Amino acid sequence: MTKPIGHRADYLWFTSITTRWMDNDAYQHVNNVVYYSWFDTAVVRFLLAEVLPAAPGLVGFVVETQCRYHAPISFPDDVTVGLRVERLGTSSIRYGIGVFRNGDDRASAEGHFVHVHVDRATGRPKPTPEAARAAFERFLPGRPATATA
Amino acid sequence: MTKPIGHRADYLWFTSITTRWMDNDAYQHVNNVVYYSWFDTAVVRFLLAEVLPAAPGLVGFVVETQCRYHAPISFPDDVTVGLRVERLGTSSIRYGIGVFRNGDDRASAEGHFVHVHVDRATGRPKPTPEAARAAFERFLPGRPATATA
Amino acid sequence: MTKPIGHRADYLWFTSITTRWMDNDAYQHVNNVVYYSWFDTAVVRFLLAEVLPAAPGLVGFVVETQCRYHAPISFPDDVTVGLRVERLGTSSIRYGIGVFRNGDDRASAEGHFVHVHVDRATGRPKPTPEAARAAFERFLPGRPATATA
Amino acid sequence: MTKPIGHRADYLWFTSITTRWMDNDAYQHVNNVVYYSWFDTAVVRFLLAEVLPAAPGLVGFVVETQCRYHAPISFPDDVTVGLRVERLGTSSIRYGIGVFRNGDDRASAEGHFVHVHVDRATGRPKPTPEAARAAFERFLPGRPATATA
Repeated sequence: MTKPIGHRADYLWFTSITTRWMDNDAYQHVNNVVYYSWFDTAVVRFLLAEVLPAAPGLVGFVVETQCRYHAPISFPDDVTVGLRVERLGTSSIRYGIGVFRNGDDRASAEGHFVHVHVDRATGRPKPTPEAARAAFERFLPGRPATATA
Repeated sequence: MTKPIGHRADYLWFTSITTRWMDNDAYQHVNNVVYYSWFDTAVVRFLLAEVLPAAPGLVGFVVETQCRYHAPISFPDDVTVGLRVERLGTSSIRYGIGVFRNGDDRASAEGHFVHVHVDRATGRPKPTPEAARAAFERFLPGRPATATA
Repeated sequence: MTKPIGHRADYLWFTSITTRWMDNDAYQHVNNVVYYSWFDTAVVRFLLAEVLPAAPGLVGFVVETQCRYHAPISFPDDVTVGLRVERLGTSSIRYGIGVFRNGDDRASAEGHFVHVHVDRATGRPKPTPEAARAAFERFLPGRPATATA
Repeated sequence: MTKPIGHRADYLWFTSITTRWMDNDAYQHVNNVVYYSWFDTAVVRFLLAEVLPAAPGLVGFVVETQCRYHAPISFPDDVTVGLRVERLGTSSIRYGIGVFRNGDDRASAEGHFVHVHVDRATGRPKPTPEAARAAFERFLPGRPATATA
């Protein structure tokens, strides 16, 4: 937990999500579980916008997720999720994810989300196709691309 | 809202569901939305236990749901959902549903859930198959059968 | 189920909600339960924008909800929820709610949501305060006001 | 991801949770997000059963959660969540959590959940009270206690 807290500039692709009344739990903050629904949503929107047009058959199984909670978010706050590619393996990808509350520049929560790419028919891991890899590489930190959906 | 509140004896099939911490909302009661996840779960469990063995291809689309909330439920309460068949149309079925908190005999919430049976390929309504109809009729009030899963 | 399907012009106040990947169920459509989280969210946003500034202590308990599903919605669709006041009782209010998919003019789902206004300390129903009543009346069909948040 | 997959014997306290139809996502498996609702539920049930009777004022804020997904679970599977205390800091606790499908001995998913104990009034971290610490220590691996709720 000694990692510094991230800022918007640490992420390369952004998407907006609305909170829902039932996201708040008995402490009147968005429950810790709900953040992962935002991770999930951001990754799929990212794939639809940036990767699947070039690599239409790509299917990923989620093998690991993590979230560190820095500061509370409450309905009716709006949320922006920032995304970057942190690691691109032979058949897996690790996304880094930051959650930003309203106009905040400092992340309210950060985590990661790991997909293993699989063969749709067998469910077995297979190497990430080259077209997908090229799309993902644009979102590795240090690369020039920035996009928003 | 002048209907009397129902009791366990008004239902014919029962199933148990555990509450989850995040079901509680900012008022520290299970949020109104969550009750419908119990309706949904009870109907599918009922179909798996009582109908699909005899009518394996049955597919239903949800066309209407309703819930009246009589008294609050809070995690870590346990919930029993009671079910009965209220109306059996040509291609639709209306389930009556009662939600019982812990050992309560009086329903904490009641409602209904309407499925239209459809052709799996086209998604168009089709007459409820005879084998399904026979299974459903056992759970019309006034009929002898009672079962629990 | 003989009511005609509503259009945007049948509603008086609108709010936008984003779908989430996990809203889709095994049939790849948003699950019937999730619609109620949109109802809930729309009502609370409406109260925050249009009613609570004039009637800050207002607390409502949900006593009945209903939804009729006309056509499926799937992530990543966006949703607009339309709201109107359908009935204003002594201590209760019935909201009419329409759910619109992307730019559709015809509702994908419609329903209602009934709040009983209660005393915060005792949880007992109490007459809806005059300031709240005046705010609600602006959203009875036939009245001039239209607003959006 | 080189950690070996755990078994029931690696956990010290167990609780049962029912799956819900809407837990399944478009791939017909329980969505990755839902597992965290089980973590959350298991931790709060554990606190209610084993810790809060001795340390009634204890309040924890969630600061980190993680889950590794080994094998899919699908409604209507039942789930048993196993729990152990992995680390007891001055004001924080890390729970290790295993998710077991039906009668499986091998975990379908494993992760952790970190609470910081806070002062209820200020929300600031404070040392875990001695009575809570004594209760938690019974669930550190290597200690004799085993309990189930």
